[in-house]
Amino acid sequence: MKKFEHMALIGCGLMGGSFALAVKRAGLVKRIVGYSKSPSTTSRARQMGAIDEEASSALIAVSGADLVILAIPVASTEPTLRTIKHLIQPSTLVMDVGSTKVDVVNAARGALKDRFGCFVPAHPITGKEVSGVDHADVNLYNDAQVVLTPTELTKVAQLRQAEALWKGLGTHVTSMSPEMHDAALAASSHAPHLIAMAYMNAILAQEDGHRILSLAGPGFRDFTRIAAGEPNMWRDIFSANRTEILQQIHYLQHMLGRYEAALMTDNQAAVESLIRSASDTRAQWKPGKLYTPESLSKTKPTT
Amino acid sequence: MKKFEHMALIGCGLMGGSFALAVKRAGLVKRIVGYSKSPSTTSRARQMGAIDEEASSALIAVSGADLVILAIPVASTEPTLRTIKHLIQPSTLVMDVGSTKVDVVNAARGALKDRFGCFVPAHPITGKEVSGVDHADVNLYNDAQVVLTPTELTKVAQLRQAEALWKGLGTHVTSMSPEMHDAALAASSHAPHLIAMAYMNAILAQEDGHRILSLAGPGFRDFTRIAAGEPNMWRDIFSANRTEILQQIHYLQHMLGRYEAALMTDNQAAVESLIRSASDTRAQWKPGKLYTPESLSKTKPTT
Repeated sequence: MKKFEHMALIGCGLMGGSFALAVKRAGLVKRIVGYSKSPSTTSRARQMGAIDEEASSALIAVSGADLVILAIPVASTEPTLRTIKHLIQPSTLVMDVGSTKVDVVNAARGALKDRFGCFVPAHPITGKEVSGVDHADVNLYNDAQVVLTPTELTKVAQLRQAEALWKGLGTHVTSMSPEMHDAALAASSHAPHLIAMAYMNAILAQEDGHRILSLAGPGFRDFTRIAAGEPNMWRDIFSANRTEILQQIHYLQHMLGRYEAALMTDNQAAVESLIRSASDTRAQWKPGKLYTPESLSKTKPTT
Repeated sequence: MKKFEHMALIGCGLMGGSFALAVKRAGLVKRIVGYSKSPSTTSRARQMGAIDEEASSALIAVSGADLVILAIPVASTEPTLRTIKHLIQPSTLVMDVGSTKVDVVNAARGALKDRFGCFVPAHPITGKEVSGVDHADVNLYNDAQVVLTPTELTKVAQLRQAEALWKGLGTHVTSMSPEMHDAALAASSHAPHLIAMAYMNAILAQEDGHRILSLAGPGFRDFTRIAAGEPNMWRDIFSANRTEILQQIHYLQHMLGRYEAALMTDNQAAVESLIRSASDTRAQWKPGKLYTPESLSKTKPTT
């Protein structure tokens, strides 16, 4: 496996800091130069041993790098890549860790031009409800799934390096188109975040909100954990993938309507059938379990 | 604190088995006689040391008991209480652990008649997504909130005993009317269960369901944990509290509509304002934290 000489880390927050700690522990990179918009973040990342050197600009971090990692809000992808474009060599591997891929690929295509082939769009499906380098965790990527969304212009050499690097961190790597990624992630991650947040908003809007929160137990705790996500980050994700997310909200509303109709007439058989299908599927789900269309058809409701 | 001589446990599943283990550890009861509809459950409860004796009927379990605990589906409350009514002495404490209270109180009133004053309706806000005595846990009630919903007919002696018993288990006890309980729990627990289940149903209804589940990560894991609830139990809860739950689903749909409207026009400021309010509230929430109307008004969205 290729060992990188010089990794430039643009964005030393939770995702970037954790990535740096993990590649260091795995011995995949010799030297890490980090840059964050906030100098105190960069400084803290160096104190924690996530990066070896602090850079005062993205340009300084990237100069001479054979590996560039962007761990920044997805909306900052285009301006950042524009800034560093002229320092990217044909052999450099450039990767992001963003939660949306269509917008990131479009941003990279526009910004990198003839160097676009060096860019391997990546989304490691992991995270925490807290942000910032202080929460960086060397184990954040352990056993996580990583989706790569190469395009027809992505160079095979960089794609192979990216796959090897993620596997070297103990993650499980799959590839698909950016569009397919965004549709699936809207359903598995973005919509749940929005729903959990809308649920919190709905409690706050009620006169009894204080009593509801006072009586909330462990079910509430887990269901709403993702509602505490970082507002700017989730605003950007919702905006970037809004068409797919709106579609998912529509699907949920349709199902809520089925429960409503059944509850309104106290049709307990219909409610039980819906619950049973949901409960069976969830009870059998495990992180990283691979499903086929056939494996799912068994658990669909019969009504 | 009163030490009970003979506790009858009707229903030796997760909630009942855990309660028995906890009162034994706390030394609050001398002898526990258990009964479950399924003899294998009762037998397993005895093997695990949750109960001291197996009874072949509810009547045999209750005969001579100074404490009767119902840990059965809420829909079984009325027939069970009817069966044992003539064995309840004026000094007996009878308690349930059900998740809905208006229906349980009505059932107890109808079944117990002149012994209704012995009944203290209780809801310990805890649980697991798995059921059955094999998952019974001596620590299930630690630090849990317990809501008592006495009526104007509940005897003070029994109410005081119930409060002391729950406090002796290390729980935090509050009292309110059955109606207030059901409204608050519809919002804090029942609606989230329904929403998580409807979300699972919505994934299953999609052609891409297999891909969505294959890519689901830790956010999905926590958000959907409660979707794996036991179907019969949740069918009963949804049915018993359907008016309040329908109201909560209506509130959620209204908030989903606000996100939809903002996403449709890509109004990022409006989306961010909603997210920020939800995220701030959730980040500050802790289990058992007591809110006042004033403490919440600060985190409401300004738009």
